[in-house]
Amino acid sequence: MDSRDFDELEDRAREKLAPGAFAFAAGGADDEITLADNIAAWRRLRLRPRMLRDVAEIDTGVSVLGARIAAPLMVAPTGRHRLFHPEGERATARGAAAAGVPYVMATTSTVTVEDVAAERRSAPERHSAPERLLAPQWFQLYLPHDRSVTEGLLDRVAAAGFGAVVLTVDQPVYGASPRAARAPLEAGPDIRAVNLPGQPAAAHGYGAAHSGTVTFPATFDDLAWLVRRSPVPVLVKGILRADDALRCVELGARGILVSNHGGRHLDATVASADALPDIATAVGAKAEVFVDGGIRRGTDIVKALALGARAVLIGRPAVWGLALGGADGVRDVFEHLRGELTRTMALCGVAKLTEVTRDLVA
Amino acid sequence: MDSRDFDELEDRAREKLAPGAFAFAAGGADDEITLADNIAAWRRLRLRPRMLRDVAEIDTGVSVLGARIAAPLMVAPTGRHRLFHPEGERATARGAAAAGVPYVMATTSTVTVEDVAAERRSAPERHSAPERLLAPQWFQLYLPHDRSVTEGLLDRVAAAGFGAVVLTVDQPVYGASPRAARAPLEAGPDIRAVNLPGQPAAAHGYGAAHSGTVTFPATFDDLAWLVRRSPVPVLVKGILRADDALRCVELGARGILVSNHGGRHLDATVASADALPDIATAVGAKAEVFVDGGIRRGTDIVKALALGARAVLIGRPAVWGLALGGADGVRDVFEHLRGELTRTMALCGVAKLTEVTRDLVA
Amino acid sequence: MDSRDFDELEDRAREKLAPGAFAFAAGGADDEITLADNIAAWRRLRLRPRMLRDVAEIDTGVSVLGARIAAPLMVAPTGRHRLFHPEGERATARGAAAAGVPYVMATTSTVTVEDVAAERRSAPERHSAPERLLAPQWFQLYLPHDRSVTEGLLDRVAAAGFGAVVLTVDQPVYGASPRAARAPLEAGPDIRAVNLPGQPAAAHGYGAAHSGTVTFPATFDDLAWLVRRSPVPVLVKGILRADDALRCVELGARGILVSNHGGRHLDATVASADALPDIATAVGAKAEVFVDGGIRRGTDIVKALALGARAVLIGRPAVWGLALGGADGVRDVFEHLRGELTRTMALCGVAKLTEVTRDLVA
Amino acid sequence: MDSRDFDELEDRAREKLAPGAFAFAAGGADDEITLADNIAAWRRLRLRPRMLRDVAEIDTGVSVLGARIAAPLMVAPTGRHRLFHPEGERATARGAAAAGVPYVMATTSTVTVEDVAAERRSAPERHSAPERLLAPQWFQLYLPHDRSVTEGLLDRVAAAGFGAVVLTVDQPVYGASPRAARAPLEAGPDIRAVNLPGQPAAAHGYGAAHSGTVTFPATFDDLAWLVRRSPVPVLVKGILRADDALRCVELGARGILVSNHGGRHLDATVASADALPDIATAVGAKAEVFVDGGIRRGTDIVKALALGARAVLIGRPAVWGLALGGADGVRDVFEHLRGELTRTMALCGVAKLTEVTRDLVA
Repeated sequence: MDSRDFDELEDRAREKLAPGAFAFAAGGADDEITLADNIAAWRRLRLRPRMLRDVAEIDTGVSVLGARIAAPLMVAPTGRHRLFHPEGERATARGAAAAGVPYVMATTSTVTVEDVAAERRSAPERHSAPERLLAPQWFQLYLPHDRSVTEGLLDRVAAAGFGAVVLTVDQPVYGASPRAARAPLEAGPDIRAVNLPGQPAAAHGYGAAHSGTVTFPATFDDLAWLVRRSPVPVLVKGILRADDALRCVELGARGILVSNHGGRHLDATVASADALPDIATAVGAKAEVFVDGGIRRGTDIVKALALGARAVLIGRPAVWGLALGGADGVRDVFEHLRGELTRTMALCGVAKLTEVTRDLVA
Repeated sequence: MDSRDFDELEDRAREKLAPGAFAFAAGGADDEITLADNIAAWRRLRLRPRMLRDVAEIDTGVSVLGARIAAPLMVAPTGRHRLFHPEGERATARGAAAAGVPYVMATTSTVTVEDVAAERRSAPERHSAPERLLAPQWFQLYLPHDRSVTEGLLDRVAAAGFGAVVLTVDQPVYGASPRAARAPLEAGPDIRAVNLPGQPAAAHGYGAAHSGTVTFPATFDDLAWLVRRSPVPVLVKGILRADDALRCVELGARGILVSNHGGRHLDATVASADALPDIATAVGAKAEVFVDGGIRRGTDIVKALALGARAVLIGRPAVWGLALGGADGVRDVFEHLRGELTRTMALCGVAKLTEVTRDLVA
Repeated sequence: MDSRDFDELEDRAREKLAPGAFAFAAGGADDEITLADNIAAWRRLRLRPRMLRDVAEIDTGVSVLGARIAAPLMVAPTGRHRLFHPEGERATARGAAAAGVPYVMATTSTVTVEDVAAERRSAPERHSAPERLLAPQWFQLYLPHDRSVTEGLLDRVAAAGFGAVVLTVDQPVYGASPRAARAPLEAGPDIRAVNLPGQPAAAHGYGAAHSGTVTFPATFDDLAWLVRRSPVPVLVKGILRADDALRCVELGARGILVSNHGGRHLDATVASADALPDIATAVGAKAEVFVDGGIRRGTDIVKALALGARAVLIGRPAVWGLALGGADGVRDVFEHLRGELTRTMALCGVAKLTEVTRDLVA
Repeated sequence: MDSRDFDELEDRAREKLAPGAFAFAAGGADDEITLADNIAAWRRLRLRPRMLRDVAEIDTGVSVLGARIAAPLMVAPTGRHRLFHPEGERATARGAAAAGVPYVMATTSTVTVEDVAAERRSAPERHSAPERLLAPQWFQLYLPHDRSVTEGLLDRVAAAGFGAVVLTVDQPVYGASPRAARAPLEAGPDIRAVNLPGQPAAAHGYGAAHSGTVTFPATFDDLAWLVRRSPVPVLVKGILRADDALRCVELGARGILVSNHGGRHLDATVASADALPDIATAVGAKAEVFVDGGIRRGTDIVKALALGARAVLIGRPAVWGLALGGADGVRDVFEHLRGELTRTMALCGVAKLTEVTRDLVA
């Protein structure tokens, strides 16, 4: 994969993938207003770069929950990677490790947590980084009705070495994607959410009409329980309001992921770029704030950090990288973004990320 | 009818209907600025969903003028349904009753009030609703020059069991629709406004050039008279200003329907979504506020309720449902919207509609 | 000409006219930003109609400089009408008189002032108006270098019965129209500005490259002189700033025509709709304020009056009417607009124009 | 070259030039957001012209750093002109001199500073100007790692008669242009940056993927050194923030060039039109403020001056003029702009540039 932009990457993935798999990954809810606005909102923001600063040495490194990573980038949790590449989440994990960035593995992965964890431990040295980086892996969690399922999963991912769990809270029910409904998945019986007991192959639900039945009924009480029960730190993903973010932090969440789930479940929400500043201001230093949705350029990353994010998560582009090049494709996506970030930092007059402050965005 | 969106529904209705009938229903005044802006205004609004709330049980029910209905939805008054389906308003009434939502029958209906009322009484049980719902029917009224005509109609609709009359005030004269003028109606002589004495078949006027002659000359004095004279509560439809709304309430109106008549008569008015907040704030608890115009999604419904509406009226989509599927088509449109509303509520963290407050909209 | 909209009228004129004549009338300066924005600015405004008012009798009449006219409409001064119709300005004058609206004849007319004046005096009775209306004619004036030319013209137009002169001040030099440059005029030698001594046929200048030579060098001193010298009241056309408007009024101007010359000379000015409110507020009752540029609908007229205009001038649509139907075409354009205005007033709840106040526009 | 607009000029240059040369000049960084917004931002601004002023004599002259020039226009520094015309920067210099405007020669020129300087001294008299103008030449400078290279260049350009050096500070690293990457340069070995010692032909870097290596590491310390060391005044080019501008002025910069490098290196910055007002206000009379980026019309020039610029720099259009007509083409571009400026000034009611004040822009 060369350095061309991610629109082209998506086009190439569309050509390669089965229509259902592409639509499953690319589609958004309803009229895809939020899907489009997520991208547009970053583009609307304007940079106010500083000049004549010493940018001889650019350091893209940052720490997340105490772990040093190569760049303020993570692989966002997305499901069912064997739809996109035979190696599935193994390849994703290997690519992320090679790029020195965290992989947030999804509950609905098609590879076991142990296999994913093994890929991290065997990652080669990153010679281009200033130090030997072994970026953490986190595990994205839904809360099903049965807490014992969650408890089993928590102990298993902690034992496998995952550094945190990320509770997704913005999908109590599935959204409806007209695009996905027009191109249904034709997944074979072996593409299953193997980490969930008894989960059938076709149970992802996304894109289908539905009854409104609550599938993942997490409440603040559940969050409090999870914080107590989890052997590893808990972050909350899917927050779009400052009041919700603060309550999560009060209940013990160590991080807030500002997200609208890539516009996949509730359409017409605020774009993540528009939701971020208030939340980051409210949370302040009480927890770490992250954001995903629509980030496609190094300039978007700097904008997100200027608005208060510690790092950003990359969803669909990582899937396209996986589809087109397996582990190398994933690595290339993140190396490319890190390259753009490096250049953007130099052009903005910031040598390290702590210098990225609010005034860089108009 | 499956769960696809209403743009597709309109396309299918366009293929099925005679050009004149389609244009009569679909068209708007002049340059159709308001027709388009009604839809765009809802889309411009952004939701700020709440997370981690208990949404295990979603209740879409609400009461309107004291009557419990299945969802904050009504069939907006639109005329001449036998242009769209042989059963005309009988089918509409049956579909609304099956969905558990009120039908606001239009003065210019092509079926008698008694026949429409009979459809409600014979509606089957709604098994999917938490209780046996028999949603009310309301009657939309124009004030012709001759008050005795109105008096006869009032007594007749009250006797037939209609729960309220809705006075339309935004059409003292007809607007002009270039689209409708290009595709004139070819209604047969038997498609008449049968509830008006001596009304000829082609007298609807909409879309034609005209002399500006006042056809329905309602004033505040007329409203005061109507409130005194009507055996049932009176609501006013077509209000776009807070001062007008307040004066109607002072004169005894029990409800205000914020509406620009679907952009059919005066072009370039404020979109109904933009007019709603001021009116709802001004009226407060003194009357019930409703809105129509451009609502196409469950997210639009939540936005309308967040801005102060108690329920929303659905016009054109109901007509397309009628055209494509008769009573079942109408029912499906409202069941589909109720499904979208249920999902939207869950995704917004609200279990019942009283929890939909102003802060849900950015 | 039927009641269809003016976009269609322009399309039909484009088909009928020679390319150069059409481009001369239709084109704007440079990138035609102002040409487009003049129309868009009216469309951006939203009406807040009043309901339940007594609109049984709509009166579109208004007085301008003390003369009663049928509607708040005038024929804007545009030049060289024999390019568009063999009768030229005679037809325009006859059409305006038949519609009961003032004709502002241009300096660059191709018919003598006496012939134009004669058309007004022989105008037939307007049976549709409440009274016998004989709308005034005004004369649009440029100030050439030689004041004696102006003096001759002033005395001549006053003798012919013109009720006012309108000094155009926004064209000290010609603008450049790329559109007009691509389709040059092929006017025959007999299409001349016959009211100017020794004016050659091709001297209009518009659309050509130029040296910036000042052709019509009016200053405030010239305006003061004109007010003293003119036998009839003086208005100023082409004002876009409140300070300029006030200074004109202080020097004796009886009216201000807010205008950017239809976007023909200076591009990227404020749209006339956007310039109007400040000027109208500043001028108040000290003079009468008019506006032209982009008005195409009855709703635009009500918006203009709500923002402080006493009447509006119609330029290009009048030319298209002239091209397509001669005097009848001009009359039809204004009767059509008056019809739209009547309907708009009824739908806005205003029975006479004094009821059109600022709050009608959002 | 006739007086048509610059979009057409670019189209004609695209047809004539090799794809790589065209893309090198025309392209912008990443998604070309800033490239487009630079143009759009000027277009969004609206003029508030003054009327009835004495514009019989328009004077477009202005002084820059004490030198009188024919118009507030300069040739922006752009590189490698022999890609566009065999005479390269000699032709550009001759064209600028013929138009009476300064030429800011780029470091990456393909002709020696002495040859460029010679073109100025042999420039013919400008008969159309009020006086014999010999506009200055300035030299654009990058700071390479080795200060001795800079010192040699400084002494050489001063000796050649250049009136100032313009330090470009917004390109510490190269940006990436997908457009340029798709159409690589095929420059022959003789198209070199001849004024830099040992500079290879293909070393421009622009458009290629890159490692983020800092190439031109200017800091405020370097600026302070340059101000002390330079025999001629120093200006700073590439400033987008008021705080940076003020610090440059405090360090001795005599002028600030507000610029985002034509959108070539950092995408999604503020448009230069949007950055200008704050900087001009902050700098006030302490230094001279200039601007480039997206200026294509005489109206844009007046807007820039109204927002605080003393003169504007023209980049790509000058290159198109060079490509299409050599020295004459460059001269024509600037004579055309000066003509548009003259007309715009007359139509705005300003006879000299000191009358262009902030209130001319809405």
